[in-house]
Formats: sequence, structure tokens, C-alpha cells
Amino acid sequence: MSRELSPHVDRLLPADPGVRELARRLYDAVAAAPILSPHGHVDAALLADDKPFPDPATLLITPDHYVLRLLHAVGVPLDALGRGAAPADPQEVWRAFCANWDVFLGTPVRYWFETSLSEVFGVTEQPSAGNADELYAHIDAQLRTAEFHPRALFERFRIEVLATTDDPADDLAAHARLRDDPSFHGHVLPTFRADRYMDPSAAGWTIAIAELSEAAGTDAGNYAGLLEALRRRRAAFRAAGGTATDTGVLDAGSQPLTSADAERIHAAGLRGDATTEDATAYRRNMLYRLAEMSSEDGLVMQLHPGVIRNHHRDTLARFGPDSGHDLPDVAAFTRPLTPILNDFGTNETFRMVLFTVDETAFSREIGPLAGFYPSVYAGAPWWFLDTPDAIARYRRSVTDSAGFTKTSGFVDDTRAFCSIPARHDMSRRLDAGYLAALVSEHRLTEEQAFALAHRFVDDIPRTTFRLPGGTASAS
Amino acid sequence: MSRELSPHVDRLLPADPGVRELARRLYDAVAAAPILSPHGHVDAALLADDKPFPDPATLLITPDHYVLRLLHAVGVPLDALGRGAAPADPQEVWRAFCANWDVFLGTPVRYWFETSLSEVFGVTEQPSAGNADELYAHIDAQLRTAEFHPRALFERFRIEVLATTDDPADDLAAHARLRDDPSFHGHVLPTFRADRYMDPSAAGWTIAIAELSEAAGTDAGNYAGLLEALRRRRAAFRAAGGTATDTGVLDAGSQPLTSADAERIHAAGLRGDATTEDATAYRRNMLYRLAEMSSEDGLVMQLHPGVIRNHHRDTLARFGPDSGHDLPDVAAFTRPLTPILNDFGTNETFRMVLFTVDETAFSREIGPLAGFYPSVYAGAPWWFLDTPDAIARYRRSVTDSAGFTKTSGFVDDTRAFCSIPARHDMSRRLDAGYLAALVSEHRLTEEQAFALAHRFVDDIPRTTFRLPGGTASAS
Amino acid sequence: MSRELSPHVDRLLPADPGVRELARRLYDAVAAAPILSPHGHVDAALLADDKPFPDPATLLITPDHYVLRLLHAVGVPLDALGRGAAPADPQEVWRAFCANWDVFLGTPVRYWFETSLSEVFGVTEQPSAGNADELYAHIDAQLRTAEFHPRALFERFRIEVLATTDDPADDLAAHARLRDDPSFHGHVLPTFRADRYMDPSAAGWTIAIAELSEAAGTDAGNYAGLLEALRRRRAAFRAAGGTATDTGVLDAGSQPLTSADAERIHAAGLRGDATTEDATAYRRNMLYRLAEMSSEDGLVMQLHPGVIRNHHRDTLARFGPDSGHDLPDVAAFTRPLTPILNDFGTNETFRMVLFTVDETAFSREIGPLAGFYPSVYAGAPWWFLDTPDAIARYRRSVTDSAGFTKTSGFVDDTRAFCSIPARHDMSRRLDAGYLAALVSEHRLTEEQAFALAHRFVDDIPRTTFRLPGGTASAS
Repeated sequence: MSRELSPHVDRLLPADPGVRELARRLYDAVAAAPILSPHGHVDAALLADDKPFPDPATLLITPDHYVLRLLHAVGVPLDALGRGAAPADPQEVWRAFCANWDVFLGTPVRYWFETSLSEVFGVTEQPSAGNADELYAHIDAQLRTAEFHPRALFERFRIEVLATTDDPADDLAAHARLRDDPSFHGHVLPTFRADRYMDPSAAGWTIAIAELSEAAGTDAGNYAGLLEALRRRRAAFRAAGGTATDTGVLDAGSQPLTSADAERIHAAGLRGDATTEDATAYRRNMLYRLAEMSSEDGLVMQLHPGVIRNHHRDTLARFGPDSGHDLPDVAAFTRPLTPILNDFGTNETFRMVLFTVDETAFSREIGPLAGFYPSVYAGAPWWFLDTPDAIARYRRSVTDSAGFTKTSGFVDDTRAFCSIPARHDMSRRLDAGYLAALVSEHRLTEEQAFALAHRFVDDIPRTTFRLPGGTASAS
Repeated sequence: MSRELSPHVDRLLPADPGVRELARRLYDAVAAAPILSPHGHVDAALLADDKPFPDPATLLITPDHYVLRLLHAVGVPLDALGRGAAPADPQEVWRAFCANWDVFLGTPVRYWFETSLSEVFGVTEQPSAGNADELYAHIDAQLRTAEFHPRALFERFRIEVLATTDDPADDLAAHARLRDDPSFHGHVLPTFRADRYMDPSAAGWTIAIAELSEAAGTDAGNYAGLLEALRRRRAAFRAAGGTATDTGVLDAGSQPLTSADAERIHAAGLRGDATTEDATAYRRNMLYRLAEMSSEDGLVMQLHPGVIRNHHRDTLARFGPDSGHDLPDVAAFTRPLTPILNDFGTNETFRMVLFTVDETAFSREIGPLAGFYPSVYAGAPWWFLDTPDAIARYRRSVTDSAGFTKTSGFVDDTRAFCSIPARHDMSRRLDAGYLAALVSEHRLTEEQAFALAHRFVDDIPRTTFRLPGGTASAS
Repeated sequence: MSRELSPHVDRLLPADPGVRELARRLYDAVAAAPILSPHGHVDAALLADDKPFPDPATLLITPDHYVLRLLHAVGVPLDALGRGAAPADPQEVWRAFCANWDVFLGTPVRYWFETSLSEVFGVTEQPSAGNADELYAHIDAQLRTAEFHPRALFERFRIEVLATTDDPADDLAAHARLRDDPSFHGHVLPTFRADRYMDPSAAGWTIAIAELSEAAGTDAGNYAGLLEALRRRRAAFRAAGGTATDTGVLDAGSQPLTSADAERIHAAGLRGDATTEDATAYRRNMLYRLAEMSSEDGLVMQLHPGVIRNHHRDTLARFGPDSGHDLPDVAAFTRPLTPILNDFGTNETFRMVLFTVDETAFSREIGPLAGFYPSVYAGAPWWFLDTPDAIARYRRSVTDSAGFTKTSGFVDDTRAFCSIPARHDMSRRLDAGYLAALVSEHRLTEEQAFALAHRFVDDIPRTTFRLPGGTASAS
């Protein structure tokens, strides 16, 4: 079988020749537009330090739970992928990946890899057991050159805005270094993610509270102090350029508690005896409070509920979190968000972007909510749904009830730095195909489609996430 | 950007040239067929009185919650759309609509407006802030002419049957006037909607009971009396030409109560102290009783569960119901309808049409139920789902398990009178495309497709809703 | 209307001419491949006895709940289809079917019938009231010839492997006769289905326990004995060539009980006083124990949860189970399978194939689970979902997160012996169309698509179900 690697110029565009021709023109119009990445997991220190990447496996395989997941599913142990207690030889990790390359057929992981191997690293052959060492050497050599240092790639990728994900206790020193460095021209914005502080029954909550107290310069050892500490850190994030928060919770339940109840549960958490019911009530109160704070300070609230984290007990024990066994749950938004939307849903400062891994919510809840509440935006397909077919279903499910302007624009959500351009490229191709199909069905004019293609990669994400720059009126 | 408004002759037809050619022929075969509208919200008095429409905004914007919803979602306050306590200048309302015209791009609202502005009012330019006053004047002038009075439009729209939605306490005088008027040739049928009487804990229930007692000439102040009053009014609706009932409930739960329990809760409701549990039990009993009555008198029971009404407390307080914040909920039919289907599901008189705003129910519950119970029909996509893409998904989800004959045919469900032809036209185009695709995949012959295209707009809705006229054998 | 019956050579292939041309070549490459049927409901005695089929209705209509369901839905009573207490004239049953032939338009039942009537029986006219007797005579005459005896059809259908579904108490004598018969060359494998033993509150459980005790030669009258009896019978099934089990349960709940609790409930079941809660706990423990046994003996565990059996009380009373009123329920896998997957999910011997009739689970649960757990495979669309459109949705929902190799391959799941080739043919056509579309979107190369088309009908089902034969490495 041919092992050539050369991504087709028309990949992901619609098959119908007439539709494709227009899709290609729409894609070409935005293919080189700067990348706005308002939600992701790249570490700001990577760019602040600008040190060379260590090796191909540590860059491309070991940290990417999309890759780990599928290799594990066909029987490759996570130890062999560099996730075990003992360090793995990166060249062996790379070999395991190449030998199982065909496992990724039909998945977006394969697509992202083909594009980035080809376009970032100039690889011209499909990985295989036979060429693994050769590819490793080829990529590794490049990683040692200046053109492949993080900042050089950042520029080459045309990233204009990159939002990171940061703990409130983070001092944002790396962000400051970047901001203060006249030689760096991108916007690297911190995102406030307070997940660690929401569950007083969780392992690590007490430590988190202590770290936050230290970072905020105020005692978060009681509930009022925690709110104050979070407010201080939000201000610091805003001062550092942050425009958004992110929250990943098991469900979107939101219900304010009285201060007395919240204080009681907070104290129980510190003593280590918060009950499950109390912890749930506390978490739902905290989600409500985070919305309240967003309605005060205007940080855009991203909500990512509905993932069951660490489904496999032994894998968690041996390999830790983010090792591929987080799994989607049934989503609900309309009912659980009632308290938040009743109190802040029409507040002009408040803005909330809803993401789901249960696509049934697209037409049933997310589109309709974004189609009434001025504060609500329909988040792009996320995680298990950031795939060609699910993205198409998202467009065909949400636009009907929310139009185009209440969608968020694409988010890459990735910790795989080198996949960023491939992911945005995929989104641009799919949107081009979608718009071309609408034109071909006479549901849009060609002019409208071109205008929308531009808006999808520019003013729509800028407005949704209140990003700097651009010609769009911030709202 | 071009502002020309001229809906394309092939709009909504499939892109593939071969499929489109057949789709166009299928569409042409039924494009001019009379409109059967077995479910909608036009007021019979509109036709009985036949007065000119007041102005473009009051006709097209203020009463249409589809429009309000999306304008509100981008920040237009409902006051500015004529829904506030103070009357709004209709010309200002129209300006707000035109200025935000592009918000509707990609939604069916845009499609319906483009078609009706063009075909009903001869508008040739897309609305915009710039031409708002000119368009207003153009439409307003036409509304004052005889050709644009309600009955003239009714005839021009080729509406053969129009079902309205009416409270059991309604005296149906407008329907009587129409029926007795030899100059009016359409069928305007009342539909019995008893929602007000089902929840003894609801505000207004006591008043509703009193009004119904008055209308029925029997005391509905106890449960047995309520059933008797409903039966009498159903007979009156049937005498007035009604063939169906409609019920909108939070969920499809159905469970008969003993008379003693029902009387107890009814009395508590009148005293104002029915508990939530009691109210739910009463509602589910009432749904069961409505099915029982349908199995006796043959009024087709339409069921529209699963909408959370009035999600935003302050919007309800300020602007009342039907102002755009009703939102879909998770749907269930198979389990909650068990009592009804066990007792009446194979009764030849009983007929039940199931509608959903949660499209997951199409292939999981509605198609399978319609594919076994002779009494059950799969209702057309409703409300948030009456869109080109959701309608396509409905066909591709329900036909597999229920065939074509157990689907309901299109319902426009609208209070926007001028959008009726556009909505039916959309449905006919989409069905033509669907049938053409099946022919192109050799799943139907061309002959079968033409026969089905006709049945979709004629004997299928006639049979489902037991409508008058037509050549189909009523069943 | 034309009554010709001649299934088109390109049926079910994509409409786009370019895509179709490739789809046709892909289909042609596998159209004649032997049939692997790893899950079905044909009785092994049919082949062991090899007696002629009694008549067309008894062969094609009366036992097929797909057919019964749709005829019942349009008002044909089940008595008239041979399911009543009194025997029905098979020619009358056949007439009822032919007279209602157009009811099946648009459903897969029609597709399977058209293909098998044409290709198996050489019928050249669509059934109708007019030709019912003629068709009956035509088919009936063929059934009396040697070429239409079960074994002759088995060979003509090119069935290589046929798995049956069998009770643990079955002595598997028919399987033994086939295995020991040198003139029979197929593999007819028993499948262990222990549903009868899982619910101690069910009618018939006590009798089932007694029959199992007898068959296993050990007393299943207590819980430990039941486990021992099931283990013995599993060993017997393995010895008879079985490679898999099957379990149909209301939900996928799995939770081990202590032996003491399980013994207590078992004893209560024998006394006839197990509570509903106890029965549910017992069932969930049994599901866990079946997984435990599969992790020991390597029988592939098929799980088919989420069907509400016998929804209509009177139909059950009059016509018994499998008469068309089993209906889909909401599916869940990730949460309820946690105990099983935590304990056996990474066990190399354990293998579990997940099936659903709620397609929302494809992208939300089944794909993601198969995309992490080495033991989990995504089962093909089942029952209400074994239709052209749902199969397409399955491919477009599961591949993204699980790739191709963690899907199960097609299962026909049928008791309609003559429909087996038509069902597999449908699947091959749809997969060819799917692969051709991926190639046309440059998501696969043509070479990869051909390789996958072969794998879908050969090593993928062989590996998933640990079938005998083939060139694939068993794993």
C-alpha cells in the first residue's frame, strides 16, 4: 500500500463538483487569516522560555490524550507511551505510535497529524513501523533548529491571540514576561479556571485553598474569604489581559446558597467531613457565584459541563488524570442554568459560552438558549465532537435556532501546540463546505457566504470572547 | 453588498444536479396544491371580521415569538418590539426589525420572511436600516387595499382547511359566522385546547373553571363536573366542525386517578392549596381522561409535550407569555404514555399525533410507537425543529420505522398568517428533495415519489386529522 | 402504477455520479464475500433437520416482528397474520401482507423483501392484492424443491459462519448434529443467552432454574449453584464452538452483590416474594457476574440493553412476546457499566460489544468507550436502527472517536432466514457508499477504502467475535 503522505488540497471539502468549487474559493479566502485561539491548553511558559522542544514523542505523543486514548483502545499500554512512573524512551514511544498509525484512520487525530507532519515538519511518508526511526530523526533534528523553537512556530502559525488555561493561584509570570517582551508580538491571554476550588470534598481542595490564599494575599480559609480571593485573582487576570474564565463541572447545576450554609460547608470541607450532598450544593453555589462575578467584571464565562473524569480507577491510580479515560455524559443546560439565567441572563456585562460533549443538546438546548438570551453563545463542538462530521452536525443543528452571530467561532482546545494550525484549518475547510452547501441550496447568496467565512474567523470569535484587536466593535 | 430580494426558484432543493432536476419536478407537481393547515394559531375572528390588518409591525413582528426571540438574543429589548406595557410606534418596531435583518441569516425565519415579503407584498429589496421606512410604507399601503384583507389573502393563499386553536370556554362564534357565511368557502375548524384546566395549582385555574362552567352550562366546580363540562364543549367543537384537540404539557405523563383522589385535588385547587405533587398527579390524570374522551368521540388528540414555558422570570413579568423564552426539554413518550396506550392504543376511534422539540425522540420513540400502535401518528417537526435541516432529519429518522403513512403531514403551527404559504412551500420543497434523493438512491421509483408527494399534501394530513373533503377514504 | 420488481443494481449507493462510481467498485469488491453472521436468531435445528419450509407465510411473515409491527400499525390485526390462538390460513396471511405492501415503502423491510423476493425466489412483480395468490403459489412451489431446503439456501447464501441464540439449558443437540455431519460445511455456533436467569421476580424464573439445574447437572437452586451451572453450560457452549454470549436487559446497570445478599434474593425468588428492588439488584449483580465469567473464559459478551419489552399489555396477553411491541428506551452505558469496566475493562481476555436502540449513545458513549477500553467494541446499529439512514449516522458518529477497528462489523440479528443475504448486502452497499464519500472528501485514499471494505466483512467481525477461520490474527 502506498505510504506517501501528501494531504490533498481539497481535503474535507464537499464531493459535489459545483459545491466544491465554491467551497474551495471560500476556504481560500480565509485559509491564511490569523489564528484566534480563545480556548486552549498551551502553557504560556513554553513561549516565554522559548526553549527547544525536547523530542518528537514528548512533543507530539505523551501529552496528547486524544492519541493515548486510541492507542490504549487497541491494546498499547500507557507505560509504553511515556505515561508510566518510570520514564519511557521517547524513541520507543514514537515507534509504538508509528506502528499503530492505521488505528487513527477515519479519526480527526489522523487528520491533524497528517496535516502537521506534512506542513510543519515536511514529512512525506505515512508513519509506519518501518520508517519510525527515520521520521523520529527527521523531526528531532528540526526541533533543535531555531525555526522550530516555540516562538518561531507561533509566528509561522500566524497565531494572533492565544488564550491559555490557568489556575487562579498562578502568578501569571510567564504571561507578564511575554507582555513585557518587545520582541514578542502575539497576545497570550490567561484564562481563569477555578475548578480546583469548587468541590470541598475533593482531594486537594484544602491545599488549593491554601495556595489561593497565598496568591491572592487574603485568607480563603472561609467562604467569604474564598470569594474575595477569587475576585482579587480575577482582577489580576484581567490586568494581565485575560478576557475569559473557564469552568469544567460534572453538570451545569447552579443554585445559590445562603452565606451561612456556604460557610458551614466550607468549614466542613476544611475539616475533611463535607458530605456528598453538601459538596454538590457547594459546587452549584460556586457556579452561580462565578456567573455573578462575570456579570460584575465582564470576564466571559465558558462552561464545559458533562464529562465524567477518570472513568477507570486503575488507570487513574497508575497514570493520573488526562490519560484518556474522561468520558461524555448526558448534557442538560436549560433546567440547571435557570438560576444563573434568571438573575444574569439579560445583564449586558454577562456573557456565557456553552459547550457540550452530548450533541443532543445542540438543537434542544444550546441553540434555543443562545437564540433568546443575549448573554448566551453556542460554543463550538468540543472534545469528542471536534470532528468533521460532528462539526457539520453542529452547524446544521444550531444555526436554525440561533443564527450565525450567536455561535462562538472555533476553539482548538488543545495542548498539542503543533496541531493548532491543522485544527483551525480543518474548521475553516468545514465551514467553507457548509457555507457553500447553503449557497448551492439558495439559502445564502455567495456574497453573504464570503462575508460569513470572514466573520467566522474574525469578528465572531473576537466579539464572543471580547478579544483584543480586530475591526469588530467590541460589545 | 447586494440588497436584492428575489427568492431563487430552486431554493431548498438538493445541490446535486441530477437529484435537483427530479426534485424540481416533484415540487412543481404539488407547489400549487391547496393548503391543508390542521394545526395553527390564527384567530378565526380575523377571517370572520375581515378587517384590514393594522400595520406591518403589528401584523408581522410583534406577535411572532420566532422573531422576538432572535432580536432579543442580539440585544434588542422587547419593549422596542411592541411587547412592553407602553404602546410602541409600529414604524419604530419595523425599523428595529429591518436594522437587524442579518441576524436572521441561516434561520427559517429569514426564509419565511423572504418568501412572504417577495410573494405576498412584492418587496424586491432586502430589509435594512436604510430602506425600513420605504418598505413600511409599501406594505402599509397594500394592507389598506381590499386585496390584502384577511379573506382575500386566505383565498389567494389557496387555504382549503385552517384549524384554529381554541379554549373550551370559547363560544366559537367566529367559526359559526364563517360557516354560516355563503360568501366564504374555506373550512375554518376549531381545535379544542384544554391546557388551562389541567393544573389546579396554576394561577388562573379557578377563573378558568368558572368560565368553563359558564360556557358549558354545567358546574365544573368539582372534578366530575369538569369532565362533564369538557365533554359538552367537545361535542360543541365537533358540531362546529372540529376534528381535533391539542394539549401542551410539560411532560407526557399519564396516569388515571380514582374519582375520589381527583375530587380531593380538585377541591384543594379551588381552595388554593393543591400541592405540587397533587397538581402533577391531577395533570397526568387529566391527560389520561382527554385520551379517554378522544377514544369515545374520535377527536384526534394532538400532544405537544416537553416545552419549559417562560424560562426567564423577569421577561414573563414584564412581557407576559409567548415572548420568546419557552425552551425545549428532554422528551419521553414510550414510558409516560404507557397507561394511555395500554387502554386506548388499539381502539379504532382513538388517534394520537405526537410532536416533539427534542429530536432524539424521532428514531427512539415516535417512529417506533407510530410503527406499532394503529392509533399513533408521528407529528411533523415542531417549533424549534420546523427548519430545513431538522425536517430533513425527521424524514430520515421516522420513515425507517414508521413508513410514510403513519406520519402526520406538515403543520405550520403559526400565528403569523402571512407566513402560512411560505411555510407550506418550504415543506413541499424539502419533501420534494427528500423524495428525489430516495429515487436517486433507488429506494423509491419515480412513480412512487410522485404519488407520495401528492399524498403528503393531501390524503396523509386528511386521514391523520380526519379533515373534511378530499378523495381519500376517511378512516 | 408499474408493478415491476427489479431491484436496481446501484440501489443504496450515493447519488453523486463520481462518488457512486467508486462506491460501486467498492461494493463489487465485497458483494460476493462469504457471510459472517455473528449474531442472529435462526434455529440450528432448521439446518440440522433440513426439512422443507412449510409455506410462504410461515416462512416470511408470521415469525417476523418487523413485518407484524408495521402491518399492525395500519390496522391489520395480529390474528390475521397467524399470531392468534387459532391457526390462520397461511394463504390468507400472505394476502394480508400483499394487500398492504405499500405500507412498507421507505422502510428497510421493503428493501429486504424486494431483494429476497427477487434474488431468492425470482419474483418479478411487486406484491399486491391482485397477484397475492399467484406469488404464493410461485414461492410455495419452490419451497418444495430441494434447492430451497434450508441447507441448500445456506450454501447458496454463502454463509460461512452463523451464530444462533440459545438458552443455557439448551442441549445444543442440533449444533452437534451439524458439527458431526461431514456433508455440512458451515460453522453454526451457539450463543449463550442467559436472560431467563437474571430476574428472580419474573414469571418463569423458577422453572428456568429447574431446567438449568437439569441441563447443567448441578443444583441451581441457590445462587452459588446458579453461577456454577452457568459456568458449566458456558464451557459446554465453548466446546460446541460458541464464541460469544448475548444479554438483553432493560438497562446496563451492573453492581456486584455480596454472596450473602445474592443468596438471600435468590431464595426469595424461589419463594416468589422477591421485591422489585431486590430483583433489580440481583439482575445488576448477574450482569456483573456474566462479565466476570467472560473475563475468565473469553466468550465475547454482547450487551443489548434499552428495550422496553411487551409495551402493550393486551397484545402480550393475546399474542405473546416478539409480536412487535418491544420499544426503545433511553440508553446509558458509561455510568451503569462503571463497575464492570473498572474491574474487567483492561483485562485481555474480556471483550464486550455494546449495542443500542437509542442512537444518541453512538457519539456520546459507545464511540468514546470503544475509543479507550481495549475490551469494548462498538456494536453495529441494531433493530430499529438497522436501516440505511441510521447505519449512515452510526458510521458518521462512531468512527470519529473509535476509528474503524473498534467497530463490530455488521450483525443481521434476524430470525428471517431468507433475508440474511439481503441484510448483509444492504450493509455492504452502505459501507461502500460511506467509504466512497470519505475518499471523495480526501479523508481516505482509494487503497485504504478497498482495504477497509474487505476488513468490514472479514477480519473486523472475525476479531470482534473471535470467529473461526479467516486469515486475520485472532486476538
